[in-house]
Amino acid sequence: MGGDDAPGEIVKGAFKAAKSSAAQILLVGDERAIKKHLPPPPLYKRRGIEIVHCDDYIRMDESPGTSLRRRTSASLVVAARLVKDGKAQALVSAGNTGALHQIALLEVGRLKGIRRPALAALLPSEGEPVVALDLGANADCKPEYLLQFAHMGDTYSREIMGIQNPRVGLLNIGTEVGKGNTLVNQAHDLLSESNLNFVGNVEPLSIFQAEVDVVVCDGFVGNMMLKSAEAISEFILKRMKQAASLNARAKLGGLMLRPSLRSLKQDISHSDHGGAILLGLKGIVIKCHGRADRETVRNGIKAAEQALERDVLGRISENLNASEVKA
Amino acid sequence: MGGDDAPGEIVKGAFKAAKSSAAQILLVGDERAIKKHLPPPPLYKRRGIEIVHCDDYIRMDESPGTSLRRRTSASLVVAARLVKDGKAQALVSAGNTGALHQIALLEVGRLKGIRRPALAALLPSEGEPVVALDLGANADCKPEYLLQFAHMGDTYSREIMGIQNPRVGLLNIGTEVGKGNTLVNQAHDLLSESNLNFVGNVEPLSIFQAEVDVVVCDGFVGNMMLKSAEAISEFILKRMKQAASLNARAKLGGLMLRPSLRSLKQDISHSDHGGAILLGLKGIVIKCHGRADRETVRNGIKAAEQALERDVLGRISENLNASEVKA
Repeated sequence: MGGDDAPGEIVKGAFKAAKSSAAQILLVGDERAIKKHLPPPPLYKRRGIEIVHCDDYIRMDESPGTSLRRRTSASLVVAARLVKDGKAQALVSAGNTGALHQIALLEVGRLKGIRRPALAALLPSEGEPVVALDLGANADCKPEYLLQFAHMGDTYSREIMGIQNPRVGLLNIGTEVGKGNTLVNQAHDLLSESNLNFVGNVEPLSIFQAEVDVVVCDGFVGNMMLKSAEAISEFILKRMKQAASLNARAKLGGLMLRPSLRSLKQDISHSDHGGAILLGLKGIVIKCHGRADRETVRNGIKAAEQALERDVLGRISENLNASEVKA
Repeated sequence: MGGDDAPGEIVKGAFKAAKSSAAQILLVGDERAIKKHLPPPPLYKRRGIEIVHCDDYIRMDESPGTSLRRRTSASLVVAARLVKDGKAQALVSAGNTGALHQIALLEVGRLKGIRRPALAALLPSEGEPVVALDLGANADCKPEYLLQFAHMGDTYSREIMGIQNPRVGLLNIGTEVGKGNTLVNQAHDLLSESNLNFVGNVEPLSIFQAEVDVVVCDGFVGNMMLKSAEAISEFILKRMKQAASLNARAKLGGLMLRPSLRSLKQDISHSDHGGAILLGLKGIVIKCHGRADRETVRNGIKAAEQALERDVLGRISENLNASEVKA
């Protein structure tokens, strides 16, 4: 029920995912609304889709808070409890990020030893996509959280991206040691002393230039980076469209250029990557962009499957314990 | 001597500015290196240009710190002292930002009542450019600093942009009250109680959509927003160039579209806006982008002239006193 185009795009994305994988999908929400976007029951059931009906759902603009947990018939709470009770192995949502974070934290719970779960996603670069975290789960962070984020990112990069010895960078406004704010400087010290392949401070440009495999930051700064990049992309693409409609010559030019620009659009768009993963919980929790279309949702489900197959959570626990012993 | 293409582009930009205005320009740096980029002395002197020779200069990668102040023959220190001693009314530099901030703070000094000077610049939007501060002077901020930044931005918007009742926004990762980190939440309270036309939290997209005239943030977050926007712009423009060279059709399309794209490039490029202004000091201090070309430098000098003509510093002092009385 979450997402700007829910439930239509969510349901259609889930149906797409069910067709192309062995995943069993529980669609949690208003049964009547969901059914509108599915073929007849025998057809969707054969694909491994079930509907779990809920009367209530959390709106996109509701303020997160512990009180949301008491909304026991809200789809997000029901879905999180399915994971908690072992009836589902992953939760995928395009809904209210703050609510998802709160409910997942309270219902699914943290992995042992994890202080704060972090929202991780793959950012496009000139090379392989870069694992970035925290992208918005924790607006106020301590240096130790950033160290844990780095360990989780390292594990994700190894297991999901197949990188042998991931280069870990610390997001900063300059590369020199001593640059940035107090939080970043203290995190720099902790990361330097860790057993990670820490390459130091990196600026946003270093991410796009693929100078790192993992980049860590506090959730406020990470989310601001994402939102700034999204804003300027929209600004540029809008202006390009305007430019390409100024006169006949520009129109023709735009049309001729369009096929070659398609891969750029894909790289920038969020639908390709499916979503962000809330790392550090006892279950896989994927957050798709609020503007998720069916393709985004399908990729979000695919990402959840991959994380389960590679046992990312198990590896995070192992590596966390190993790093604590060494520390 | 500061800037990636110094002194060539700096000197040429200054000469351009001298030709089109009555400004008297003191070029502070290595006399021989500067002279290489100027016409013969009678010619540049007639334009109101003088050279102030210095043996030393601060490199782009030197760590800022109070020790830089002791580099009494470094061009930046000499230039700041010219302002301090009333021999110059403004300082324009494309050099090391951290060093400029430190030296300006120590030599030029703060306006009475100002707790922290802030780096302000105009960001492009679909409407009028938006005054944004702090964009990098203060990596660690207190809520009260952000309130002062808002007052300074309000004054700048009134005096320089001619906006009657500037809408002031607080940069955040969401628009709802309560979103963001502790600093932002506390600043929100202070701004709400102020006599400013405070419109609440704004996201980066709101800036480009011209929903505010002034936006405030801490220097780390502001600089991160700028660097993220720059990084993604470069990424997109690079990919567009690649797309426009993929095949004959795309090449032709790119060529046909190019004239219409020119204004977009201008909007994104930093050369148009000249630079950022360090507000809250006893003199006008303009920081041009490190990659400044002659056009950037000329515009930076123009911005300094404008700030002097409109007496921005005087107005900041007045408004600050007025707001303190009301507070």
